[in-house]
Amino acid sequence: MTDFTVLPDHGLSWLEASGDHADIVLSTRVRLARNLQGHAFGPRARVNDREAVLKRFKDSAAQAPSLAGGTLIELPGVALRTRRILLERRLVTRDLLGDDETGPARGTAVHLSGHQPLTVMVNEEDHLRVQSLLSGLRIEEAWRLVDRLDEELGQEMPFAYHQEFGFLTSCPTNVGSGMRASVFMHLPGLVLTKEIGKVLQGLGQVGLTFRGLYGEGSEVVGNFFQVSNQTTLGKTEEDLVDHLDKVVRQVIQYELQARQVLLRDARGVTEDKIWRAYGLLRFARSLSFEELMNLLSGVRLGLSLKLLPGLRVYTLNKMMIFTQPAHLEEAAGRDLPPTESDAHRAAFVRRILAAEGEVSPDDAASDEGEPSDGS
Amino acid sequence: MTDFTVLPDHGLSWLEASGDHADIVLSTRVRLARNLQGHAFGPRARVNDREAVLKRFKDSAAQAPSLAGGTLIELPGVALRTRRILLERRLVTRDLLGDDETGPARGTAVHLSGHQPLTVMVNEEDHLRVQSLLSGLRIEEAWRLVDRLDEELGQEMPFAYHQEFGFLTSCPTNVGSGMRASVFMHLPGLVLTKEIGKVLQGLGQVGLTFRGLYGEGSEVVGNFFQVSNQTTLGKTEEDLVDHLDKVVRQVIQYELQARQVLLRDARGVTEDKIWRAYGLLRFARSLSFEELMNLLSGVRLGLSLKLLPGLRVYTLNKMMIFTQPAHLEEAAGRDLPPTESDAHRAAFVRRILAAEGEVSPDDAASDEGEPSDGS
Repeated sequence: MTDFTVLPDHGLSWLEASGDHADIVLSTRVRLARNLQGHAFGPRARVNDREAVLKRFKDSAAQAPSLAGGTLIELPGVALRTRRILLERRLVTRDLLGDDETGPARGTAVHLSGHQPLTVMVNEEDHLRVQSLLSGLRIEEAWRLVDRLDEELGQEMPFAYHQEFGFLTSCPTNVGSGMRASVFMHLPGLVLTKEIGKVLQGLGQVGLTFRGLYGEGSEVVGNFFQVSNQTTLGKTEEDLVDHLDKVVRQVIQYELQARQVLLRDARGVTEDKIWRAYGLLRFARSLSFEELMNLLSGVRLGLSLKLLPGLRVYTLNKMMIFTQPAHLEEAAGRDLPPTESDAHRAAFVRRILAAEGEVSPDDAASDEGEPSDGS
Repeated sequence: MTDFTVLPDHGLSWLEASGDHADIVLSTRVRLARNLQGHAFGPRARVNDREAVLKRFKDSAAQAPSLAGGTLIELPGVALRTRRILLERRLVTRDLLGDDETGPARGTAVHLSGHQPLTVMVNEEDHLRVQSLLSGLRIEEAWRLVDRLDEELGQEMPFAYHQEFGFLTSCPTNVGSGMRASVFMHLPGLVLTKEIGKVLQGLGQVGLTFRGLYGEGSEVVGNFFQVSNQTTLGKTEEDLVDHLDKVVRQVIQYELQARQVLLRDARGVTEDKIWRAYGLLRFARSLSFEELMNLLSGVRLGLSLKLLPGLRVYTLNKMMIFTQPAHLEEAAGRDLPPTESDAHRAAFVRRILAAEGEVSPDDAASDEGEPSDGS
């Protein structure tokens, strides 16, 4: 089994809650889809295509400074739980892993970088998916990282490119720049003020789209949204990056305004919601992942509003990842059926919050008068 | 306004959580209905009847050793909030107070005893309602206290008595002994195991009945039941007391068995329920009285099962009384509209629980393995 402890940051530097607006924007991801000339790609790629691609990638990766000090993990040799952990850390996609029964296809691999927040998936939907994942709102920086790695790899491997269309990809929606930039945002204010529908509709009108935590088809839980560009064709990467950055900053402003409305018009209800979420996280003995995400949403809002001064965003980010099933199983050293998983999840959350130090329920008392003991 | 602080125990010694099975049986109440010869009683009593009764009672009370050191409160002179406080403390009935608009009728009064847990309501449904209210399961003792006071008063006042029927009362259901003994019980085990219906049905078959916290017509909340004798005619008081005591002890055994079933078959769910209740009480910023009662039920069960070792039954009893609207208003020094009342209730609960000392969420860890930090 791959030993994740040898990876400097466990591939989780994106949790560190640095970067702009880290309380609202958890992370920024930019990925490029690339395919090699001379090999069938997408569903038409056969085993020998995939193996040739993997070999070419290995050779190129060895020459790419951005990937220095990293680890290439060939997935067919990796235990199921470790594969699930990679997925839960957002370092690979479900597509790359195949289904749990048959396991990953031959030639599938992921390169985890040593010093940079970069990963490369090999033989996913496209031959290569070059990805950067950073904490906070850092689209430009994330783009530069993948752009540099793209150039480094491109010097070693001829990418399939069409003069008119741009980079060719397995799915036509990725043709052109092959780039998707996405920002993982927490928008409880817009949800609670019921403004979210309007905002999401607006995203569609400016060529953006939204998804849940694990990308396409995954549900939105806990008011967490992934906002990304819809189109890849006919625009430069710089334009796409600029555009997404501009829109996301606008959404952040809407979110901040919505929070002010909550504090102005529904302060009591909002505070109650936040503290109840904290109380349940602090003491519950069984938590489903979905309930946890909803409670973390409340607590995260409380932290942003400075109502829960004892907590750090980093702690909340970490809880979100380490409370997923495979992570809990890894910590327990065994498989966990759902009810046990829920119990371990709750125990982990209690331990983390206890370590974070006691948050006094009256640290951030509301402006309302507090009655004294009635005795 | 009557100053309750001059009353030695605020009329609340029944909260002290002494007596048998104090975690399951909150309190025991025995009351006798008595009427004076020569005065119309019930709806036929006129103002001059009531005033004559009150005068006779005052004279007799002055001679009764059981009432020494007490206070007679004539209700028409008492402020609305104070009347509501008396009701919330279970020292008077809603009947005695009249409605909030017109207020108490002339001649209505309550005598709060100084040294004994005895009260006498004057000109309620009957001329006198002699009542004892004790902590825990102490039916025999409660009966002896009212019996002695009954004798003391009877020496001074001729009670309406019929050779064949016994004591005459305003409502025929009280004719005979005029006694109602009731026990206020917490039965979450029977509710959670769905055995409660059978037990309540069984009570009916042995001449007992059940009600909510505030007697006839009040709803059961938080799994709290008042169990009392249904009939008063044709049996001696001693028989009624013995019978109720025997049945209540049987119900306690059923409740204890149900709790063992919970621990055996649903330990995880039960613990989760208990700790969630504690977490919400500890941190919520708004609590309705009904929600509070339900949460107190969970916490009380946890305390009985020794899952919440840092708490005392006394604390939970006290919270139940002091979080009622009039008590909260008294503490705040002003009227409180419902949302404010809910906020003050939550603040009071937080303060009490904080004063009780921190209950660590892992003080009483379940037998299940607790996962270590997954990082």
